[in-house]
Amino acid sequence: MSGPADLLGGTAAAHASANVPVVTADDTAGEALRGLAGRKFESASVLAVCDVSALVGLLTIERLLAAEPGDRIGDLMDPAPPVVRPGVDQEHAAWQAVQHAEPGLAVVDDTGRFVGLVPPQRLLTVLLEEHDEDLARLGGFLSSAASARTASTERVGRRLWHRLPWLLVGLVGALLSAVVVGAYEEVLARQVLVAFFVPGVVYIADAIGTQTEALVIRGLSVGVGIGRVAVREVLTGILLGAALAALAFPVILLVWGDAQVAWAVAAALFAASSIATAVAMALPWLFHRLGRDPAFGSGPLATVLQDLLSVLIYFVIATAIV
Amino acid sequence: MSGPADLLGGTAAAHASANVPVVTADDTAGEALRGLAGRKFESASVLAVCDVSALVGLLTIERLLAAEPGDRIGDLMDPAPPVVRPGVDQEHAAWQAVQHAEPGLAVVDDTGRFVGLVPPQRLLTVLLEEHDEDLARLGGFLSSAASARTASTERVGRRLWHRLPWLLVGLVGALLSAVVVGAYEEVLARQVLVAFFVPGVVYIADAIGTQTEALVIRGLSVGVGIGRVAVREVLTGILLGAALAALAFPVILLVWGDAQVAWAVAAALFAASSIATAVAMALPWLFHRLGRDPAFGSGPLATVLQDLLSVLIYFVIATAIV
Repeated sequence: MSGPADLLGGTAAAHASANVPVVTADDTAGEALRGLAGRKFESASVLAVCDVSALVGLLTIERLLAAEPGDRIGDLMDPAPPVVRPGVDQEHAAWQAVQHAEPGLAVVDDTGRFVGLVPPQRLLTVLLEEHDEDLARLGGFLSSAASARTASTERVGRRLWHRLPWLLVGLVGALLSAVVVGAYEEVLARQVLVAFFVPGVVYIADAIGTQTEALVIRGLSVGVGIGRVAVREVLTGILLGAALAALAFPVILLVWGDAQVAWAVAAALFAASSIATAVAMALPWLFHRLGRDPAFGSGPLATVLQDLLSVLIYFVIATAIV
Repeated sequence: MSGPADLLGGTAAAHASANVPVVTADDTAGEALRGLAGRKFESASVLAVCDVSALVGLLTIERLLAAEPGDRIGDLMDPAPPVVRPGVDQEHAAWQAVQHAEPGLAVVDDTGRFVGLVPPQRLLTVLLEEHDEDLARLGGFLSSAASARTASTERVGRRLWHRLPWLLVGLVGALLSAVVVGAYEEVLARQVLVAFFVPGVVYIADAIGTQTEALVIRGLSVGVGIGRVAVREVLTGILLGAALAALAFPVILLVWGDAQVAWAVAAALFAASSIATAVAMALPWLFHRLGRDPAFGSGPLATVLQDLLSVLIYFVIATAIV
C-alpha cells in the first residue's frame, strides 16, 4: 500500500487521463459513436458524460455500441458511477473500480469538475506494483529492492545488498534480547525449566502479531483504516492469548510437572499475545503519521520489537512467580 | 498466487470471453467500426483479428478509432500480441498483460485457435483477489477467511475462528521446542549463558527465511519458478549466515567474555541461516507438488518448522562446543 500522496505520487490524479471521449447527456448514441471516429484517445473503454465541466455519468464503450442510434446518452449512462477525489491513494482507487466492475475509474475534484479517467491498463499496473511492494516490505527487503522479476533472478551480490540492512537491525535486536535474558539470569539459575519455554512464548506472540499485520495491510488496501479495526483487534488478541494460555497450562503441568513454571508460561502467553495485536497496529500507524508507507512498520521491525517485548514480559513474570 | 488450475479454477481460460469483436486482417477500419455498432459485446476494448479461427493479431479500440476509414486492419493491428495458453495461471496471465501495457489478454490454444480475450475488469479482479489471498496465507489465516474488506471489519467471534487453527499448530510447535530445549538441559545447567542467545538465533534464521518466502512468492507471481532461484538463494543464505556470524562473534566475546559460547552462537547463526533459505523454498515447492497453493507452505508453518530446526541446531552445536 502507499503512504501519503505527496511523497509517493501514488494518487488517482497521477494516473488519470483527460484524453478520453467526453459526450453530453443530450447527445444520441449515433452522434456519440460518429464523434469518436478519427480521434486519438489514450483510452476509449469508457466515455465521460459531462455537463459543461461537471461529470454527470459514465458510459462504457460496450453499452454505446449495443445502443440504438437514436438512444439518448443520458438514458444509457451510469448516472451514479464510482468516482474518486484526485488525492485518493492509487490502490484504494483501483479497488473501487474492481468493486463496481468498471473498466475505468473517474477522478472528480471537490467541485464536481471532471479531472480524468484512470484507464484499466494503469489500474492493473498499479495493483501489481502495490502487491510487489507490500511483499518486499513484509519480507524485509531494502526499500529500493527491484521489482519482483528482477529481485528473484538478481545476482548473489545484489541479493546480499538488498537483504543485509534489515538483518543487521535484526542482529542488534538479537543481541539486545540476550541482554534482556541476562538481566534475569538469576531466575534461570534457580529454575532451568524457565529457559525451555522462551522460543515458544516468543513464537506465539509473533504469530498473533503477524496475523494482525496481514489484516491491517489487507484492510488499508481497501480503505479500512487502523482506527476502525483497533478495538476488535485488541479484544481478539486478549481472547486468543487467554485461549492459548488455558490450553498450554495443563499440558505444561502434565508434561513438566512444575505448577509455577506452568503459571508463568500461561501468564506470559496471555500478556504477550494481548500486547502483540496493539504493537502490530501501532507501528504501521506511526509510520503512516510520519508520512511513510505503513508497510515499513510491519515485517522485520515489528518482529524485532515484539520479540524483545515478549522476552521481557516472560522473564518479568517468571521472576515474580517461579 | 494460485496452485494448479484444476483445483482453483484460476486459469486464463476461466476468465476469457469469446464475446468480443472479431475482425479479419483484410477488413478496413471503416468496415470494422461500422460492424461494431448495434452489437452486444462483453468487452470491446480490444478486437481480435482472426484468419478463420486462428488469431493473427490484436487491435485496441483506440487505434481503430484513430485510423482513417480506408486503413487495412492488417496494417493497424499488433501482429505479435502477448498470448497465453488456456491453462496458464491467472496471476501470471495478468502480469503478461501489464508487461505489454495491453488492456486485455488473448487466450490461444496449442493449435493457434483463438479461445477468447480476458477483459481488463477481469484482470483487475484477479489481481486484487490474488494479493488478498497471498497476504491472508502469509499472515496465518484459515484458508476460508473472507476477503480483505470483510476480514478487517468482521466480528470478534469470526476473527477467533479464522485465526485460532494456525495458532494451535503454533502452540504444538511451541511446546515441541520446549521438548527440544529440555533434551539439552545439561548444557544449560553447565553454562546458563547459552540460554541468553536462544531468541536471537531463532529470530535471525526466521528473518532470513521470511525474506526467501517473500522472494519466492513474488517470483512465482511473475512466472519465475523456485528452480530458477534455488541455487542463488542457498548461496545467499550461506553468505548471509557467514556475515552475521562474523559480526556476532566479536560482540559476544567482548560483552559476555566467553569464547566457547561466542563460537557456539556464531556457528549456530551460520548453520541455521544457511538452512533457512532451503526450508523456505522446500515447503512452497512441496505444496505445489501436492497440488496445493504454494503460499500455504509459507507463513506460519514455515516459521514453526524453522524455529524448531534453529533451536535444535543451536543446542546440538552448544552441547558440542561449550
